[in-house]
Amino acid sequence: MNANKGQAKEKVVLAYSGGLDTSVCLKWLQVEKGFDVIAVCGNVGQDESDLAAIKQKALDMGAIASFAVDMREEYANEFLTLALAANGLYENSYPLLSALSRPLLSKHMVEAAHALGAHYIAHGCTGKGNDQVRFETSIKALDPTLEIVAPVREWDLHCREEEIEWAKAHGVPVAATKKSPYSIDDNLWGRAIECGVLEDPWAEPPADIWTLTADAADAPDHAEYVEIGFEQGVPCSLNGEDMPFVDIVKALNVKAGAHGIGRLDMVENRLVGVKSRECYEVPAAKVLIDAHKALETLCLDGATQHYKLGVEQQWATAVYQGMWFSPLKMALDSFCAATQQYVTGTVKMKLYKGSCTVTGRKSPYSLYDFNLASYGADDAFNHESAKGFIDLYGLPVTTWSAMQGPAADAAPQADQAADETAAANAA
Amino acid sequence: MNANKGQAKEKVVLAYSGGLDTSVCLKWLQVEKGFDVIAVCGNVGQDESDLAAIKQKALDMGAIASFAVDMREEYANEFLTLALAANGLYENSYPLLSALSRPLLSKHMVEAAHALGAHYIAHGCTGKGNDQVRFETSIKALDPTLEIVAPVREWDLHCREEEIEWAKAHGVPVAATKKSPYSIDDNLWGRAIECGVLEDPWAEPPADIWTLTADAADAPDHAEYVEIGFEQGVPCSLNGEDMPFVDIVKALNVKAGAHGIGRLDMVENRLVGVKSRECYEVPAAKVLIDAHKALETLCLDGATQHYKLGVEQQWATAVYQGMWFSPLKMALDSFCAATQQYVTGTVKMKLYKGSCTVTGRKSPYSLYDFNLASYGADDAFNHESAKGFIDLYGLPVTTWSAMQGPAADAAPQADQAADETAAANAA
Amino acid sequence: MNANKGQAKEKVVLAYSGGLDTSVCLKWLQVEKGFDVIAVCGNVGQDESDLAAIKQKALDMGAIASFAVDMREEYANEFLTLALAANGLYENSYPLLSALSRPLLSKHMVEAAHALGAHYIAHGCTGKGNDQVRFETSIKALDPTLEIVAPVREWDLHCREEEIEWAKAHGVPVAATKKSPYSIDDNLWGRAIECGVLEDPWAEPPADIWTLTADAADAPDHAEYVEIGFEQGVPCSLNGEDMPFVDIVKALNVKAGAHGIGRLDMVENRLVGVKSRECYEVPAAKVLIDAHKALETLCLDGATQHYKLGVEQQWATAVYQGMWFSPLKMALDSFCAATQQYVTGTVKMKLYKGSCTVTGRKSPYSLYDFNLASYGADDAFNHESAKGFIDLYGLPVTTWSAMQGPAADAAPQADQAADETAAANAA
Amino acid sequence: MNANKGQAKEKVVLAYSGGLDTSVCLKWLQVEKGFDVIAVCGNVGQDESDLAAIKQKALDMGAIASFAVDMREEYANEFLTLALAANGLYENSYPLLSALSRPLLSKHMVEAAHALGAHYIAHGCTGKGNDQVRFETSIKALDPTLEIVAPVREWDLHCREEEIEWAKAHGVPVAATKKSPYSIDDNLWGRAIECGVLEDPWAEPPADIWTLTADAADAPDHAEYVEIGFEQGVPCSLNGEDMPFVDIVKALNVKAGAHGIGRLDMVENRLVGVKSRECYEVPAAKVLIDAHKALETLCLDGATQHYKLGVEQQWATAVYQGMWFSPLKMALDSFCAATQQYVTGTVKMKLYKGSCTVTGRKSPYSLYDFNLASYGADDAFNHESAKGFIDLYGLPVTTWSAMQGPAADAAPQADQAADETAAANAA
Repeated sequence: MNANKGQAKEKVVLAYSGGLDTSVCLKWLQVEKGFDVIAVCGNVGQDESDLAAIKQKALDMGAIASFAVDMREEYANEFLTLALAANGLYENSYPLLSALSRPLLSKHMVEAAHALGAHYIAHGCTGKGNDQVRFETSIKALDPTLEIVAPVREWDLHCREEEIEWAKAHGVPVAATKKSPYSIDDNLWGRAIECGVLEDPWAEPPADIWTLTADAADAPDHAEYVEIGFEQGVPCSLNGEDMPFVDIVKALNVKAGAHGIGRLDMVENRLVGVKSRECYEVPAAKVLIDAHKALETLCLDGATQHYKLGVEQQWATAVYQGMWFSPLKMALDSFCAATQQYVTGTVKMKLYKGSCTVTGRKSPYSLYDFNLASYGADDAFNHESAKGFIDLYGLPVTTWSAMQGPAADAAPQADQAADETAAANAA
Repeated sequence: MNANKGQAKEKVVLAYSGGLDTSVCLKWLQVEKGFDVIAVCGNVGQDESDLAAIKQKALDMGAIASFAVDMREEYANEFLTLALAANGLYENSYPLLSALSRPLLSKHMVEAAHALGAHYIAHGCTGKGNDQVRFETSIKALDPTLEIVAPVREWDLHCREEEIEWAKAHGVPVAATKKSPYSIDDNLWGRAIECGVLEDPWAEPPADIWTLTADAADAPDHAEYVEIGFEQGVPCSLNGEDMPFVDIVKALNVKAGAHGIGRLDMVENRLVGVKSRECYEVPAAKVLIDAHKALETLCLDGATQHYKLGVEQQWATAVYQGMWFSPLKMALDSFCAATQQYVTGTVKMKLYKGSCTVTGRKSPYSLYDFNLASYGADDAFNHESAKGFIDLYGLPVTTWSAMQGPAADAAPQADQAADETAAANAA
Repeated sequence: MNANKGQAKEKVVLAYSGGLDTSVCLKWLQVEKGFDVIAVCGNVGQDESDLAAIKQKALDMGAIASFAVDMREEYANEFLTLALAANGLYENSYPLLSALSRPLLSKHMVEAAHALGAHYIAHGCTGKGNDQVRFETSIKALDPTLEIVAPVREWDLHCREEEIEWAKAHGVPVAATKKSPYSIDDNLWGRAIECGVLEDPWAEPPADIWTLTADAADAPDHAEYVEIGFEQGVPCSLNGEDMPFVDIVKALNVKAGAHGIGRLDMVENRLVGVKSRECYEVPAAKVLIDAHKALETLCLDGATQHYKLGVEQQWATAVYQGMWFSPLKMALDSFCAATQQYVTGTVKMKLYKGSCTVTGRKSPYSLYDFNLASYGADDAFNHESAKGFIDLYGLPVTTWSAMQGPAADAAPQADQAADETAAANAA
Repeated sequence: MNANKGQAKEKVVLAYSGGLDTSVCLKWLQVEKGFDVIAVCGNVGQDESDLAAIKQKALDMGAIASFAVDMREEYANEFLTLALAANGLYENSYPLLSALSRPLLSKHMVEAAHALGAHYIAHGCTGKGNDQVRFETSIKALDPTLEIVAPVREWDLHCREEEIEWAKAHGVPVAATKKSPYSIDDNLWGRAIECGVLEDPWAEPPADIWTLTADAADAPDHAEYVEIGFEQGVPCSLNGEDMPFVDIVKALNVKAGAHGIGRLDMVENRLVGVKSRECYEVPAAKVLIDAHKALETLCLDGATQHYKLGVEQQWATAVYQGMWFSPLKMALDSFCAATQQYVTGTVKMKLYKGSCTVTGRKSPYSLYDFNLASYGADDAFNHESAKGFIDLYGLPVTTWSAMQGPAADAAPQADQAADETAAANAA
């Protein structure tokens, strides 16, 4: 494909991070594909020194336009709130940090494409990860007429050395410092680390992969307590002080990170059919999801809690698999939203040496009823109801026992009686 | 009800623990109901000094027979293995320790009733807890012809003082020492603590409720690593040494307890319609379930893993709710058993200051394929497949976008096209 | 209990149908309980000759107030719409007709209690059916301070003869005509029939139980076609003519009933732990649910359709079990509502000899894409994508086969290779 | 790809039906790919005149080996039994007839490849259907080392005319008769019909697509009753006569087909991301699944029945999507097998004018208990238990109402009380 046919060049919007891979992409799209490139770099809370510099770097390499957008509030308020409502943990563990940021970046890229009349969108993902799928399904869901270019899947730069060689040959700046051996993706909701040594699931992760979280051994020797206030499922205060959600996330990444909280080391099932070993550090996400769950145990009735566990898994799987913008995920959001109406209250957490523990939870809408739960002498619970309850509750298993279960097996006379009953029933 | 009508006394089998409540029950059943009482006390690994003494105590109070049975191996091999296969955690947290022991005790009581010709079974549970339901459904499932007596639900001893008074008046031994304010149930799989002060879910549990686990602050300052071997889902070795499952449980209760691992503090939904705040310590259960889950991430394919999460919740709910002996729970066992065939391998865990962390897992049947997962240059994964995959994978969301989603919303011309397509399709 | 203590009588609101049972209740509440009775009779579309007469009958028997309320539109618009959105069928079969009307009646009774200052509500249900639970949970959910009286569970009239005797002795009018042997509950959504002969699940239902539906053998010899229009999941037109939902239901009960459509004969699991054999006739419900499902196959994407099947079952079970007014059922409603936004279009049904068959469906929002689905030569589908798709889609099962499945079983060399791979992975 | 490199030709096993498409494939694999072709044709009950002739036709066109295998008993006993245990209906409707036969054919092809030393397997499926996925995942699951060739996805014969031209040019016999406009797949479990006119989901299917089923209008004017006996979930007798399952299927295809039973017309979600309109006729499958479900309502307890609905959907989706040989599907089989142990008994069905209706069901293991279900005077049900049951069963919704629901909304004083309770609880 060459995007242009003699006339004005076609435009492509590129998800640009400032790193080597997307810098080579930026140049490659110009050189090999003849595109005019529009760079979009989003601040979703990653550990980036200088967004303005990244923006300028794209222009320096020939981009016709370059956007550096602070998406942090939007990320917190329109993505992380829904993730928290769903206690979003893929395979019950991974808080979906990359899966949550990709649709947000895609939205901004599609907007840039619409604003500047581009018909192409490019990303720097490889052909075996999840992110290519997340970008492409998000973009297609937002505008199916846009065409997608994935240089890394297409080009013939087979290793880092070839890539650096190509970069140098085409005037792409290559940092003098030795590259970290780790491949990182990070944002407000945490940090993902991949690298060669982690690919052996029996090997313990090396200490230097962790940057957001202290090692538990180095964490303070005294516990710290935090109180997190929620209003309809959304964090609204920290230690009694009202605060925007985005600031609570930032503060907890620091606080919980210092106590070594939120390290994850897991083998997960990628969308593209392989298992991979992944390490994450998610201090704020860990504390907030644990706190939110604890508040829900007070504010949701049991039936809703139990059913919601399945909804949460489906939600997390859908988001992990790139289906943020999809009708099923949106309907699951509606379910979750309905459950959050009374998830208002405060949760007290203890942070210590790698663990966060809920030590208290309270709510003006608490369904925990002291007078019903107490075993004290003056409780409000009608003990006599229990007998009737058990009579009917246990009726199916009683019938089953007589006709098919232990009683039917054990007693020949019971068998006979069963036959007679059956005969009577069937008569 | 008086169980006897002039002739020989009716017999009742009583679940006897040696404590005050069941001692009063034992006497009350004789005095108030005219029963001959058969006491059954089971050793399921609880912290009991002297089973023989308990057995004798029952006889001393007039029981016509008294059994003290070591059920620990049976408990491990026939109950805990199934719990582990299902990663049995009620509401994703509680490892079901009391829920697992009740059906085992019920089985032995029913056997005692059959052996000695008793038509009644009694338990010392109150009318507002789960255990009454677990005992009664288990007994009814094993023999629906047995009748159940629940003295505590029936008598008019409204508080501990009245109970002690009645005890003294009827020659039931009352310990001189002041009773602990906590109500405890414990066995191999952990220890449950209930008491007045815990009934406020905002209050942090007092330090003295914990006896199996050290406070993290007092735990050793150096991490300890353990390696747990599994064979078809069942723990079979500890630190390379082959060991019966029951011994692994005992050893890990000590080891992990010393590191402060396995404390739980939660609000849970009881079967009888109320929420209650519960504290548990489950050192071995915590370590083993975490290790088992980690091994499953290596040995189960993604589809099975994802579906099994729902099966596990249903299993845990059924067992929590007294349905150990029920056809649904047994069919769920069959599902789980099918998944455990290749859950064989070793998991390395780090124990430190209240946390257990998986740091490595390996299996001869691992579905993790280094060559597929690696991002290295020479990987076996066909990157070109990705484009085709995403094309078809994303097709539904693409179609949705055009007809109902963002593309349909955004572009009037798209709407028109949609109408035309729809008209064509509907023509 | 006598509701009054010397002073002014307590008031009770009674769900009154005009039949013998509730008439005896009405009198019994006055005579035995000393209540002032307020009768509430609702028209939910049942086959009742004369609501005014029923209202008057209550007053004639001494009710201090009597309400006859036409609830049909409310029933259609606030209950049946939600039932249709959820394709509400308990155990995949029963359209919940009684389960849907009970909460509506309860709502009106609670409103009457509030309006007239009654603290009691009474119903005429027995102790072994579902309706007692549905009434009581609905009432408790709407106002937990109201107390419930269930005369039929309480009185000692053990059979119909004793009931008639009591009626005659207390001036309750008893119809001269021989009572039908069938117990009926009916409303817009269908008709339930219970009777002695039906209690044998092997016996075919007698012909005279059916009144809404013709026998298929007597139905017209020519098929009739109907076209049902939907707007966001709600029926809005019949055969091209715009019509309120409630009128569409009425019309289809007649039309489909004439063709013998909507007879059900099933064994169902009651909430109170027993199985029962039930016969229903549901002509309009059958046609509308089938049509609605067919339209959904066009307007919902596959992922939503598949997940919604589970939501529908949970919804139906919750409603069957009396949980109309409950947070889980409401959250499920939110899920369903989100899915109905584009369920707009027309379904053509053929009615003939007991069957209704969908023969066509169309929608302006159809996700069926002729150009993608066609096997014609000029289709829009990229066949080359299939190979890449299958490569990745089949990857997990390929890996499984090599490590655990047929390939691992079959080939010793494969086993060895597996061992080596595993060793390499674990190295 | 050319499969050979100077030396002996590579062998390919081809799924051969004798029709034009696979005949062209057979020749194309020789001519264009240089393969030695091994033809495998299986009799799974399709309407094929002469298997021996098909076998010979392959040899006549140059196949080096040709197998014609009667797979009907294996199909019934190892595939249809599992389908019946799972009441296998994709999207609650389609009995999976093609999805069930593909893995069976794959198994025989893999066996042929092993027996004759072939490293390739070929099928004649297009790139947009489900069957390509089913063949390829099944083959990969059985032997991941085999390579798959899909001529129809690869060649450049863009329409039937080009295909016929190629056939004539290469000596592939082309039938003189005009080809039916319909594309058919059929076997014991039914018949699938696709064609151009059916691609408009608003158009009623033309009468001549149906060959297994009479039009209801032409069906006999008198109903026919059949009694189907089951033993542990498997059909074992028809009208009282013991019969192998495979013969019952054959007999019911004739009987029920004559009554016009089993026509399906639906829009379904294909695995490859598109919706398609499909017509099926499945007389025996319809009758047997309906009968089996009816027997299960008698022999399974409610909890198992309810949970099994979800298992059934997952099973059907897995099988539809080509995952017959996969660990999840096998674990679901284990679940279903556990439920079938007591599904033994007899179901009576009425066949008439396109409908089959269950009119009776009986079982020696029936959990339906006449004495419990009856509303008669002398029933065994303890009505007094109901009150206690409802008290506890309704407790969560009562608490919810007071704290969050209608009671909290309605009454300011209730709000205040709630605040106080909450304050007390939180104190």
